Amino acid sequence: MDINVVNSLTYEDFVKIFGNVVEKCPLISAAVWSRRPFKDLADIETHITEFIHNLPDSGKEGILLCHPDLAGRDLQSGTLTRESQEEQSQAGFDTLDSAEIRHMYRLNAQYKERFGFPFVICARMNKKAEILQQLSERLMNDRAAEREGAIEEVKKICSLRLRNIVLSDIQTKL
Amino acid sequence: MDINVVNSLTYEDFVKIFGNVVEKCPLISAAVWSRRPFKDLADIETHITEFIHNLPDSGKEGILLCHPDLAGRDLQSGTLTRESQEEQSQAGFDTLDSAEIRHMYRLNAQYKERFGFPFVICARMNKKAEILQQLSERLMNDRAAEREGAIEEVKKICSLRLRNIVLSDIQTKL
Repeated sequence: MDINVVNSLTYEDFVKIFGNVVEKCPLISAAVWSRRPFKDLADIETHITEFIHNLPDSGKEGILLCHPDLAGRDLQSGTLTRESQEEQSQAGFDTLDSAEIRHMYRLNAQYKERFGFPFVICARMNKKAEILQQLSERLMNDRAAEREGAIEEVKKICSLRLRNIVLSDIQTKL
Repeated sequence: MDINVVNSLTYEDFVKIFGNVVEKCPLISAAVWSRRPFKDLADIETHITEFIHNLPDSGKEGILLCHPDLAGRDLQSGTLTRESQEEQSQAGFDTLDSAEIRHMYRLNAQYKERFGFPFVICARMNKKAEILQQLSERLMNDRAAEREGAIEEVKKICSLRLRNIVLSDIQTKL
């Protein structure tokens, strides 16, 4: 993909293509559109990271709250966004048996009870066993550290989603 | 509705019910959830207004960019959010003839060309003729004034959407 193609998109097409690089937060991609022309993909990523960084803690938690549970209700009922569906499937969460689903449900509930937001992790960078281990470990964090850690995961997810868009033929997204 | 019902919602239910009080920006409602317990409806509105106010200009424009055109492509193709559909219909934009649709298309295009974001107005507080007049008048504004004016409209839309939720039986939204 040529960055000039991205720079020449209308905002409507830009938001349609890039609107979910941060899960269910088209506001963030839309905010970044005003920073055109972009030098390259990394430039888009930098603007998104900066925007997230400058949000108050409530806004960062707002981002986390827009994420679905891992192996949760939305995966079971087929209501995940396309991106989340691919990521959770690739990490093997779409083939859990019922005991594993119950186990994940309990861990997610425990995590949400402790922090007030869902467990977010870049599923594509981890295997199922590692994710389960991290979920148990991160339950020991304090709230502020966990919020920051989770936002770092959001950025990794965003980075891979951006890369994915760019590797595909952008015309097919319109 | 009892504000205690709202205060006792899980974040998932809160975001499901209140997620679109600012069009396509569940991040904002989600950010506000951390401010519970809410004293009343006005308290929720104040937190939303504060959150928007504290966004950088790029974030405010991001909010505007998440709004559909008035009498635009999404209305014609039936892809508006439920809330926008109701608002545009109530203002009479779903019964335009083809000449009026072309006229709106030209005005919207002119506005977007000038400001880089779509024309946003609280349709429920205006009749069709007033809206058309405001669209022509606001085209004369400078960009910063227009951004601020448009954000004031977002707040009015939000206020009426909040009121609408509260007037309805909250249980039917779950």
